[in-house]
Amino acid sequence: MRPPPVASTVLPAALLALLSVAGPLAAADPPPYRSAQQILDASPAADWRPIEPENTLYLELDAGRVVIELAPGFAPEHVANIRTLVREGFWDGTGIYRVQDNFVAQFGDADADDPARAKDLGQARRKLPAEFERDARGLAFDRLPDVDGWAPEVGFADGFAAGRDPEAGKAWMAHCYGVVGAGRNLEADSSLGAELYVVIGQSPRQLDRNITQVGRVIQGIELLSALPRGPEPMGFYPDPAQRTPIRAIRLASEVPEAERTRLQLLRTDTQSFRDVVEARRNRRDDFYKRPAGHIDLCNVPLPVRVAKD
Amino acid sequence: MRPPPVASTVLPAALLALLSVAGPLAAADPPPYRSAQQILDASPAADWRPIEPENTLYLELDAGRVVIELAPGFAPEHVANIRTLVREGFWDGTGIYRVQDNFVAQFGDADADDPARAKDLGQARRKLPAEFERDARGLAFDRLPDVDGWAPEVGFADGFAAGRDPEAGKAWMAHCYGVVGAGRNLEADSSLGAELYVVIGQSPRQLDRNITQVGRVIQGIELLSALPRGPEPMGFYPDPAQRTPIRAIRLASEVPEAERTRLQLLRTDTQSFRDVVEARRNRRDDFYKRPAGHIDLCNVPLPVRVAKD
Repeated sequence: MRPPPVASTVLPAALLALLSVAGPLAAADPPPYRSAQQILDASPAADWRPIEPENTLYLELDAGRVVIELAPGFAPEHVANIRTLVREGFWDGTGIYRVQDNFVAQFGDADADDPARAKDLGQARRKLPAEFERDARGLAFDRLPDVDGWAPEVGFADGFAAGRDPEAGKAWMAHCYGVVGAGRNLEADSSLGAELYVVIGQSPRQLDRNITQVGRVIQGIELLSALPRGPEPMGFYPDPAQRTPIRAIRLASEVPEAERTRLQLLRTDTQSFRDVVEARRNRRDDFYKRPAGHIDLCNVPLPVRVAKD
Repeated sequence: MRPPPVASTVLPAALLALLSVAGPLAAADPPPYRSAQQILDASPAADWRPIEPENTLYLELDAGRVVIELAPGFAPEHVANIRTLVREGFWDGTGIYRVQDNFVAQFGDADADDPARAKDLGQARRKLPAEFERDARGLAFDRLPDVDGWAPEVGFADGFAAGRDPEAGKAWMAHCYGVVGAGRNLEADSSLGAELYVVIGQSPRQLDRNITQVGRVIQGIELLSALPRGPEPMGFYPDPAQRTPIRAIRLASEVPEAERTRLQLLRTDTQSFRDVVEARRNRRDDFYKRPAGHIDLCNVPLPVRVAKD
């Protein structure tokens, strides 16, 4: 890919004014625009982090593997319960029983609400506290300067898109595309991590601080987002045969190394990440005629790559 | 559905203060919360509008019909060209050749860029002006009070989600889920309306004012959003056999009345619409523990119903 030129028509007015004073060849000339991909290609190895195997879920479908990073920093009790359920093989043989367009794909035990038919939870806990938000103290937060209507501040924490309220001293994960949440009934503390959903549409940020989020999909989301939508209200399938079978959900730490998907994530506290965000906030390639000057939290890419040996 | 009670924990502080002065049984008691569906069920017939048949496209797939409302108020020249192309049967026998996860499904003549193989455009124009934005004067604009990072003002015009810049005197359609845009090459004025895409993911608002938008899907988007993603970069299918065939694209005005899909849209200048938006901005049902106090332009539902006889 050839480096796109910086067209004068896409420079902000303030910069144009600067150039008109300093002259077109002055030292104030901006550096050439680099696309997000070019920034990633040039990023140092130290800007990337592995995903801890004990925080990595493999959702194994006939069509392939969906890789999920868990968020113990936001939902420690739910994540612990999920690990217990994984070790018991709770999800093996269950299915994706709800796919609602522009909203979520949901999976687990479709009979969970029927005591006569619900799967045994084994050693997993039957009651967990709601983990809608956490103490913001002690949480590194790579803040975005961009305005957000849903939260006083937005940014990234533990690699997840997040909101923060400095007055309340709270932080929470944001419901962006690919986020994994814990389905619940009406009571705030009715989720166990056994019923999980993945956001497959426009970010439903109204769910922020209303549901416990447990992680996000980092590879293979198209195996969920392209599933047939359930025809019933809220996307349920009327016929169990329409569900997508789940072969197993496993923790990477319990999978032989040779069978693991080795991925790395770009750290959000790096200059590379900030440069990627800016390259997306103000696109100055040949295609974009008007850089937005803004980026929404849920439009920020969280780059993933296959680990190099 | 039983009407959900208004829990005191979800009342805004200002209202609680009012109640503590006026007493719990005073006339200041808020009306019971009504869900969006309850508001729609109670809406007067005059709050709904038909869709003009000459502004309605039917994208006919083997799996069913996708209904698109065109936006001549924003892209008059593209819409006129699309009508010409429809009358010539331009799309009949073409296909959906690109589906990129969390972005777009795109269709038309996959060989459009190859002069030797491109389909004949017939009487359609070969050059159109870019219609990225329009004069805001004379355009009724039902403004949302909610902050938006992408545009100085957001709201609804001609029934479409839109941005507006009062200083520049411009308005434009916003790239929300379901929006239909006119694919182009690098030049701003390189779109003809022959290659169309539909947004099937998180709203790519960075495209606002960078591409001509021509309408939005009002029914059947799941026939596009659930298609298999193309494995090539940007979601293209390497094998033409993987494309989803398009039987035809037709204008409702040229389809016998008995074959039309009779839909109505809620007018955005009505109290019913404002009530629906508020019901979504601050959800006070049994499920939500913390109303958001905000709604994003692209999270606002634009209600559609089957026309009553």
